[in-house]
Amino acid sequence: MTTETTTSSDSEQGSVGIVERKTVRLFDAPNQLDMKCGTKFGPIDVAYETYGELSEQRDNAIFVCHALTGDAHVAGYHSPDDQKPGWWDEFVGPGKALDTRKYFVICANALGGCQGTTGPTSIDPDCGQPFALNLPVISISDIIDVHAELVRYLGIEKLLAIIGGSLGGMQVLDWAVRYPEQMDGVICLASGPRLSAQGIAFNAVGRRAIVVDPQYHAGDYYGKEEGPRYGLALARMVAHITYLSEASIEKKFGRRLQDSDEFAYKLEKETEFQIESYLHYQGKRFVERFDANSYMYLTKAMDYFDLAEGYESLADALSQSQASFLIASYTTDWLFPTIQSREIVTALIGSGKRVTFAEFDSPFGHDSFLLEFEQLEELVSPFLTQAFAARRGKSS
Amino acid sequence: MTTETTTSSDSEQGSVGIVERKTVRLFDAPNQLDMKCGTKFGPIDVAYETYGELSEQRDNAIFVCHALTGDAHVAGYHSPDDQKPGWWDEFVGPGKALDTRKYFVICANALGGCQGTTGPTSIDPDCGQPFALNLPVISISDIIDVHAELVRYLGIEKLLAIIGGSLGGMQVLDWAVRYPEQMDGVICLASGPRLSAQGIAFNAVGRRAIVVDPQYHAGDYYGKEEGPRYGLALARMVAHITYLSEASIEKKFGRRLQDSDEFAYKLEKETEFQIESYLHYQGKRFVERFDANSYMYLTKAMDYFDLAEGYESLADALSQSQASFLIASYTTDWLFPTIQSREIVTALIGSGKRVTFAEFDSPFGHDSFLLEFEQLEELVSPFLTQAFAARRGKSS
Repeated sequence: MTTETTTSSDSEQGSVGIVERKTVRLFDAPNQLDMKCGTKFGPIDVAYETYGELSEQRDNAIFVCHALTGDAHVAGYHSPDDQKPGWWDEFVGPGKALDTRKYFVICANALGGCQGTTGPTSIDPDCGQPFALNLPVISISDIIDVHAELVRYLGIEKLLAIIGGSLGGMQVLDWAVRYPEQMDGVICLASGPRLSAQGIAFNAVGRRAIVVDPQYHAGDYYGKEEGPRYGLALARMVAHITYLSEASIEKKFGRRLQDSDEFAYKLEKETEFQIESYLHYQGKRFVERFDANSYMYLTKAMDYFDLAEGYESLADALSQSQASFLIASYTTDWLFPTIQSREIVTALIGSGKRVTFAEFDSPFGHDSFLLEFEQLEELVSPFLTQAFAARRGKSS
Repeated sequence: MTTETTTSSDSEQGSVGIVERKTVRLFDAPNQLDMKCGTKFGPIDVAYETYGELSEQRDNAIFVCHALTGDAHVAGYHSPDDQKPGWWDEFVGPGKALDTRKYFVICANALGGCQGTTGPTSIDPDCGQPFALNLPVISISDIIDVHAELVRYLGIEKLLAIIGGSLGGMQVLDWAVRYPEQMDGVICLASGPRLSAQGIAFNAVGRRAIVVDPQYHAGDYYGKEEGPRYGLALARMVAHITYLSEASIEKKFGRRLQDSDEFAYKLEKETEFQIESYLHYQGKRFVERFDANSYMYLTKAMDYFDLAEGYESLADALSQSQASFLIASYTTDWLFPTIQSREIVTALIGSGKRVTFAEFDSPFGHDSFLLEFEQLEELVSPFLTQAFAARRGKSS
């Protein structure tokens, strides 16, 4: 026979297929979560998904921390009719960067989110109404305490790696510092040790847009006819600008008009330029899938985050970790510019940690980590392979 | 005598003192303004101020074009009790860059503004009510047609120079191209031949914030209890971020808290970080002095502006001019980055014009032209002196 039949090869990429969101209740009394704001809180429902198989040795698990408006649905489809796969489907699956033939991938909706994990939309058992703003203020360390507990619940002593971009990157940094025994590898993308003052400024504008929407009702809008959809859409519009690079907006939209060759000279035409139309669309679509109070809580968690808080320095904080690090930034990201990743790298080197750093050349601004898979995979795959080999080498 | 008494020296700087806003009615029927949107419009009241004395030869006049939210009150005080001088007082006055001992300085509130010149707050003589959104949509060329007519009304055939930053810079460029016989020198600061797609995006967010404020009433809020003050403040907050540089926000505010050393962990505390407090303050103060409909009209004029429109190229457009140019940008200006000024300079050189270009090193972002006087004066003063000498040389 001269013909070779291959049913599967390393380069073939597939989907994780139909997946299911699971939910577990953690932090039941009396083991409530000690929150950073000083409150004890629980129980907490955690919505999560997993892909691939946990190995017998329970040594192949990778935890994905999602960004501000993400959720547990990283890859695959919830039903055969599902039009859209999970938010990082191109990066997670058989033969992909987080290769589900080798690894067991976990992602949980963050505490304070609105996709299954306890958040402002969840019912407060004390009164039978949604928590709204009665939920304690959430810090990134609270989100991580919940993730860490979920990992223990899943029977995993030590993760092979944790990975996240943006707010997800802040989470992995916090996790690495406060639970050093819980992972071998840390992959932090398009993030930083703290949010810049400019980032706080943009978040403040977004929250203000929500707060002044009369339909916000000081957060108590559930069950009412209409929520703060204009305010939340506006918050998304301004945030969305910060996710794109100036060059990518210029290239994708420039000064082109949406549906005419000539100016309308009408102020009531709000979507005359393509970029206007795009932002309005993004705002409108966002409102369909996200909760305004969750946006309030999670942007505030982002503002508060400061990895060095409580330590003498950033290097002192990171010296707590025992992991290997992969830090990546993107040339055109102005929300988390490369200088912030460099600061982490410098601190890691200063405290004698193993760290690989890459600044990827990408035109897509902050969103690059959600769009540029090839170059990221080229770094992440060998990083994971190496971590996995080291783990098995040690445990064998 | 060995003592020399000097009552005034070149280096002494003073105030133009108490100044007065004047108003003139132009474009009375049948000489109404042919607006770019296709409408004829008039009469137009123009509010303006002048400083210094017009020379007998009427050859020492400099026209200042103000930016988006500026007005005709460039320098001096309106009354002895006035706490605050005009918006460019440090740049205009005796011994200053625009030296009122030598030059006659003019500034007019832009068409569509809200400080005396006809705009949405002005009374529509046809109905006795404010124009609101019944004013035709305004283009920068309309603003310039009004400026040009004011100059003729003042009996000035040819200005020594025109100067402006940001939206004022767009104005001077348009003026130079469409009224080439009306000036010798053109000084364009922190501006560009058109607004970037990112700039349009930020303006779109600002206008959206106004439009969705229920107190906006589709522009018809005059005489009502409350205007769209939340929306307008929000528009100002987001715009204000674009006027500052990331570095200047970081240095001025960083992550410092407003009135505590510890996080409040309260979502209702909107001004916890200093940068939040600053933006809220800026928004609030802006609402006291600016009209939401004017903001709608003037940001739209900014979006529409494209100097090359109707010409084969930017160089072709600028080839119409007969003036000498001084173009300046600022290293940390990301709203009108240096590349935009360079594009003008390249086009000017390409069409054989005289041009001086400077990129000033300044940390203050787009606002630099309103803050950094020394280095700007070092360039502007000799530019004007030279233009003045050339003018007198020619006319003598």
